[in-house]
Amino acid sequence: MQQRVIELFDTTLRDGTQGEAVTLTVRDKVSIALKLDEFGIDIIEGGWPGSNPRDEEFFQAMRRENLRHARLCAFGSTARFGNSVEADSNLNALLHAETPVVSIFGKTWRFHAEKGLGISENDNYKLIRDSVEYLSRNGRRVIFDAEHFFDGYQADPQFALAMLRAAEEGGASVITLCDTNGGSLPHQVNEAVRHVRTVINSPLGIHTHNDGDLAVANSLIAISAGVEHVQGTINGLGERCGNANLISIIPNLLLKLNMTTKKAIQLEQLTSLSLYVSELMNLVPHSRAAFVGKSAFAHKGGVHVSAVLKDSRMYEHIKPELVGNTQRVLVSDLSGQSNIKYKAKELGVDITESSEFSKRLVTHIKNLEYNGYQFDGAEASFELMLRAGKSEFTPFFKTLDSKVHVMFDTEKHGKSEAVLKIEVNGEVEHTAANGEGPVNALDNALRKALTRFYPEIATIKLVDYKVRVLDEKDGTGARVRVLIQTSDGTHSWSTVGVSENIIEASWQALCDSVNYKLFKTYYPLQKIV
Amino acid sequence: MQQRVIELFDTTLRDGTQGEAVTLTVRDKVSIALKLDEFGIDIIEGGWPGSNPRDEEFFQAMRRENLRHARLCAFGSTARFGNSVEADSNLNALLHAETPVVSIFGKTWRFHAEKGLGISENDNYKLIRDSVEYLSRNGRRVIFDAEHFFDGYQADPQFALAMLRAAEEGGASVITLCDTNGGSLPHQVNEAVRHVRTVINSPLGIHTHNDGDLAVANSLIAISAGVEHVQGTINGLGERCGNANLISIIPNLLLKLNMTTKKAIQLEQLTSLSLYVSELMNLVPHSRAAFVGKSAFAHKGGVHVSAVLKDSRMYEHIKPELVGNTQRVLVSDLSGQSNIKYKAKELGVDITESSEFSKRLVTHIKNLEYNGYQFDGAEASFELMLRAGKSEFTPFFKTLDSKVHVMFDTEKHGKSEAVLKIEVNGEVEHTAANGEGPVNALDNALRKALTRFYPEIATIKLVDYKVRVLDEKDGTGARVRVLIQTSDGTHSWSTVGVSENIIEASWQALCDSVNYKLFKTYYPLQKIV
Repeated sequence: MQQRVIELFDTTLRDGTQGEAVTLTVRDKVSIALKLDEFGIDIIEGGWPGSNPRDEEFFQAMRRENLRHARLCAFGSTARFGNSVEADSNLNALLHAETPVVSIFGKTWRFHAEKGLGISENDNYKLIRDSVEYLSRNGRRVIFDAEHFFDGYQADPQFALAMLRAAEEGGASVITLCDTNGGSLPHQVNEAVRHVRTVINSPLGIHTHNDGDLAVANSLIAISAGVEHVQGTINGLGERCGNANLISIIPNLLLKLNMTTKKAIQLEQLTSLSLYVSELMNLVPHSRAAFVGKSAFAHKGGVHVSAVLKDSRMYEHIKPELVGNTQRVLVSDLSGQSNIKYKAKELGVDITESSEFSKRLVTHIKNLEYNGYQFDGAEASFELMLRAGKSEFTPFFKTLDSKVHVMFDTEKHGKSEAVLKIEVNGEVEHTAANGEGPVNALDNALRKALTRFYPEIATIKLVDYKVRVLDEKDGTGARVRVLIQTSDGTHSWSTVGVSENIIEASWQALCDSVNYKLFKTYYPLQKIV
Repeated sequence: MQQRVIELFDTTLRDGTQGEAVTLTVRDKVSIALKLDEFGIDIIEGGWPGSNPRDEEFFQAMRRENLRHARLCAFGSTARFGNSVEADSNLNALLHAETPVVSIFGKTWRFHAEKGLGISENDNYKLIRDSVEYLSRNGRRVIFDAEHFFDGYQADPQFALAMLRAAEEGGASVITLCDTNGGSLPHQVNEAVRHVRTVINSPLGIHTHNDGDLAVANSLIAISAGVEHVQGTINGLGERCGNANLISIIPNLLLKLNMTTKKAIQLEQLTSLSLYVSELMNLVPHSRAAFVGKSAFAHKGGVHVSAVLKDSRMYEHIKPELVGNTQRVLVSDLSGQSNIKYKAKELGVDITESSEFSKRLVTHIKNLEYNGYQFDGAEASFELMLRAGKSEFTPFFKTLDSKVHVMFDTEKHGKSEAVLKIEVNGEVEHTAANGEGPVNALDNALRKALTRFYPEIATIKLVDYKVRVLDEKDGTGARVRVLIQTSDGTHSWSTVGVSENIIEASWQALCDSVNYKLFKTYYPLQKIV
């Protein structure tokens, strides 16, 4: 039997940002879009240009980027009732976003059309048909999101199916059946999709939410029933209980259901993609997440451990390497070596097979990780550590002494001052600077001290700064991990620091960041990747 | 049609504790068992008495407790090959646990029997039959867990089915089909259960794991296919990706599939049961958890909010009160007057319709949000602001002056000191404290200064701390937003601070956190919600 090809539609940047406590800057959104493209996603839904200026800014920013494979999609609704489509500001905002694909949602549940919009079946039909038609006519590939389709189908199948026909008549390239409230059951999804299949000729899509803890199952069942386009988010982010989790759907499709995607997916990047998005959103990764969680292939019980060491199939449903994850056996430290070697190779650092150095490195990294370091989001720190171990890198300066003073009260704005003594090639520089806060004061003092030795550090600036508390039980005395992202305008890189003292953790990450830039400048063969 | 009755089997205390970073004391286990009984669980699997002394202690401790409805179950394996069942220490440990129910697992995958145990089909058959028979003969109700049944059935159905017949022949009261590796797909579960149904007359059970993110769906599908006993854990705890989540399965059974349970379930206790178990295990509750998550019925987007206010069915699959959860409208930069009024009402703060105050408040909040405050993750700060606006709250202390000194170098560990001058009811307290970092030093100094005025602040501790950079372009001089979560052991609340200075932002959030606790203590009518 021929493998079926499924189209992957990611809405992390649109529906995903509806989740509680999720906020992304335009820069974060661009970074995620590029990562999704690299991974092999077909369509990236970037935002709702009619609803807020930040989303419009994102689409503008994306015009300066080159996507290798993915196509960008802007999201919106059908026209406002009463407007002509040509004059509808929402539809026109979609066109102004200049994306090859647009998705619009329309009502397919009679209750919503009548109670929410207060319009008749016939008016709703025309609204959908005309909105889709207008966007199609203007050269867009249109995806119609049939909002509340499954609830609408249960309540009044005739109405719900008529609205799908309206979208088909308007020229929609995909008609996506949405379980907007997330409460549908697998057998309901199966029956509804099979019925729609007999009525609609256009390709169908599926968009589910996880309110019943069934979003992944409902998506897979819809695909088995004939749907060929699937929408979801990375890590299942999204409003309420979240959207269908693409991180779970994709490996199930490829490894279990023998299906394929338009572009070859970098499946071994699945775990790192998941962590990358969590890190940018400043969300703690879920350790029990299917396929990609830290615990997903961790074995604790004695029975399981010995069995797994005989043959991993005994207690693992797939080989963890297929999704870029690793088996973790708490009694063994064999698990790390190949992983570290793989990463080193990726960074262009040569590590000889099973050398003394490689073994020491594994132990060293395991110690650091035990103490809270995390290198997934801090590859520049990781590379410096590797190269230091190989004596290819030594720090460009030495911190002899550092003091920070912070003063504030209820009335006045605070004052921060850093006093810094560093050494470069035997020369001592003792200086001080103020700043907006203690880290800024340190940053300013460091630049002031280093500029006469290394003028190129003037080009770099911190673009993101994240802090995570590691041992919550210890309250404000807990260790914190600071991740810093720095850019020189062309490239950006990330570094990490860990300490009970947030200033010291920031200082470590700041020093790595500057050292990394200097290393890449003075070892000209090494490009910043 | 008559409602089908499903038996609920909880294994939080056995399989759930196999999860990474999960440890429970005997006392914790007893508390959870009593809670499960109260909730309406039928069978509580408490541990593996043959494998560790703590589990034996638990069964002893339970003899002093009265369960109202639930029956206790001890877990173990079939006899060791070569032992007579009467002499098998593992089986006898099960009898010594003195529980009315016992569950034992046996191999039903040829690969496991042959490669894992190294025994023949016939020997494996006898091992299962004789072990079940021995326990039955000794008056126990025996549940047979068919380990790896679904993988075994795919590989060699004849072998797998034969082992189920062995358990039936031995007198098992329930034969549980286990997806031990957690990788089975819904259609595979459906087909296998329907086949087993034609071969086995004993009642069937289902036990799934979540490695494919399908554990809940697989459980529901097995039930629809004829299974009448379901095993799972609270919050889906368990090894690797966890077990099937009873917190999701139960409401789906009762509210969606029109099934019933042996004892009437206290469904409106579902959310509090979930939080209770998280709290005892010291795990951060998953905010997007289906049915019970803090975000499960939270609405952010303007379109959704206004629709939900018209009729909650518009964007909610069930009424949140049915599972003891509540609808929440999030205050975000999308919000208008109606959001804020709704939120105020939720918090028990009375805001008169379209008053001058309400208009000023909306403007004030929008200004704060423009400056980087975010209230959807900081409801305690939001409430204090509302009440301050209504003159119901004034701060319990005033910061006159504050200084923080941080010192470190490359060799030594850093040192942090905070000097604090505050005023309470005209009395000035001037004090100082060290800390692990500057925020900890401030926290310590604040507690030191306040304790003589308000001894109750000794009970509160910071449980989470997040930092987000707001205007990346400004590098280390950018404004940062700090979100702090605090707990007094019973309730937790979140506060926010924004500043260019991370110490000052932390200080704002810290002050709000303490003020909130004091406000709730001294206005006794206000419960912390």
